[in-house]
Amino acid sequence: MSQSRPVKDLTIDNITENVHAINSDCKDPRLRFLLERLVTHLHDFARETRLTTPEWEAAIKFLTDVGQICTNVRQEFILLSDILGLSLLVDSIDHPKPEASTEGTVLGPFHTHDAEHSPNGALISHDPDGEPMLVVCSVKDTQGKPVAGVKIDVWETDSKGFYDVQHADRTGPDGRAVVQSDDAGMFFFQAIVPVPYPIPNDGPVGRLLGVLNRHPYRPSHFHFMFDKPGFDRLITALYLRGDPYERSDAVFGVKESLVVDLGTVSDVDGLSEKYGVSPSMRLLQYDFVLVGEEEVGKLRDEKAREAIRKQGMKGMGIVNGTLVPGDSS
Amino acid sequence: MSQSRPVKDLTIDNITENVHAINSDCKDPRLRFLLERLVTHLHDFARETRLTTPEWEAAIKFLTDVGQICTNVRQEFILLSDILGLSLLVDSIDHPKPEASTEGTVLGPFHTHDAEHSPNGALISHDPDGEPMLVVCSVKDTQGKPVAGVKIDVWETDSKGFYDVQHADRTGPDGRAVVQSDDAGMFFFQAIVPVPYPIPNDGPVGRLLGVLNRHPYRPSHFHFMFDKPGFDRLITALYLRGDPYERSDAVFGVKESLVVDLGTVSDVDGLSEKYGVSPSMRLLQYDFVLVGEEEVGKLRDEKAREAIRKQGMKGMGIVNGTLVPGDSS
Repeated sequence: MSQSRPVKDLTIDNITENVHAINSDCKDPRLRFLLERLVTHLHDFARETRLTTPEWEAAIKFLTDVGQICTNVRQEFILLSDILGLSLLVDSIDHPKPEASTEGTVLGPFHTHDAEHSPNGALISHDPDGEPMLVVCSVKDTQGKPVAGVKIDVWETDSKGFYDVQHADRTGPDGRAVVQSDDAGMFFFQAIVPVPYPIPNDGPVGRLLGVLNRHPYRPSHFHFMFDKPGFDRLITALYLRGDPYERSDAVFGVKESLVVDLGTVSDVDGLSEKYGVSPSMRLLQYDFVLVGEEEVGKLRDEKAREAIRKQGMKGMGIVNGTLVPGDSS
Repeated sequence: MSQSRPVKDLTIDNITENVHAINSDCKDPRLRFLLERLVTHLHDFARETRLTTPEWEAAIKFLTDVGQICTNVRQEFILLSDILGLSLLVDSIDHPKPEASTEGTVLGPFHTHDAEHSPNGALISHDPDGEPMLVVCSVKDTQGKPVAGVKIDVWETDSKGFYDVQHADRTGPDGRAVVQSDDAGMFFFQAIVPVPYPIPNDGPVGRLLGVLNRHPYRPSHFHFMFDKPGFDRLITALYLRGDPYERSDAVFGVKESLVVDLGTVSDVDGLSEKYGVSPSMRLLQYDFVLVGEEEVGKLRDEKAREAIRKQGMKGMGIVNGTLVPGDSS
């Protein structure tokens, strides 16, 4: 490893360029760029705020606490990213949506990889206190053609506002499933009406919300994640209109296009018979529109070029879909 | 808790101001300011780099790994702060040093609170493979007057470059002590000659250094931390001149004023007899100069005001020694 230049006698004014110099031996141009921006912002933050040693110590302790409370079913760093608006921002940057396609929103920390594959029509939430709800949705492409064979992860809380993984006595998945769209691009299952709930606030992120004088609630919503080769993965959720937290989601996830009016099965002629459910059952309907991977890739590059122009970033180019210093291509 | 304004349909361009709006209900003006700057830099970082979802996921995993490897004797977040130059920067901001006082440097992750209080002259390092070294130092104030009764934490590695806490079979402190300056402002003890060593590189920070193509070594050094009511705490270290890593310290800690030439006890007439040690023993001598708390506080405020001017920050003031939005005072 080469040492770009001697590093000694670093001060408030020259340390940033010296850290850049040492990191410039990194062979990966994208990582080198990410580190260059990260170190610049980190140092500027400290300089602009005149960060004190006790504050730095508190930050070290906070981040350590965030890491230590993480388990295979609790992701406190995602929660932190969520409440700072970073998660929604990154999703917006990386998954630009053309007009008329379904918008994305935050993944949240409660997706798991152990949900059961369920056939269409299955009951996926077994909380007896939940209000039964039929979910009937379609998946189409941007040309309006049904998309069959899409793998769809769905997940929601129980009637008390807890995901299965938040129960210490969890024996297996509940309130979650992996379903698949049929030849007509339809998928349907029985669940329960989602309820508002606080994000886990017994840890460091909850304490941070407390000192910021912020409430920890998310409005009632139902998570969906769509995967099919050739299509851009869509991570989204549907929100119930009229929820008390519709306009103050702790993680900034609500978008008007994702807010739905809950209906009743009897609203639609023949639905009760077709799906073999009670006419009085609540009904969630939505038509999702997926975007091709290639289309999103092009749009992503286009938006990146637009950002380069708008932000006046000199000498930047796009290589393999990511921004790096170099010729603009 | 009031909700400043409805939060919905957030985009790349408007999310930052909306996160600020929600955080503005925080009652603590300093914390509110810190969050405002933190969120701005975090979002700008994501926007400027067009951060991707896989990169965000990698960052979440990295930070989680950093937190999870921390124990009561391993602090990986401090290590991360060190290799990014943040630790040295914060120390420089918070502990400005007037001319002719001893400069500070990084604390590092290996200070503990279980070191034994040792009388002057004690042997503090028991590694039989270490090269014996006599340490004889003075502590003075900026007027040149000896300062008695200063509590001084000292710590160093063993002959193989490991701190005691890095040994799995550690039964108690070694290579560390708490000593005290005598009425003449002197403190002295027997230790071993420090050696260069890699910072712990079997964890996520070590892996980061690897992909950055950086070596993990610190030059040979000896840590000191000075505490006495009325004086600004001094965290510093002495570095041995000629060390192979003198100009490429992985954590950016070396300052010319802290680089020393190691001598031999026989260099100074009468030293061997005075301290009852062999004339051929290595010798580390240094005169430390502490600064009064009040003097540092004034200097800190002065530097903060200078920064406000230089960085053109509008409407900032200093309250209780920290920068906050408000009237400049």
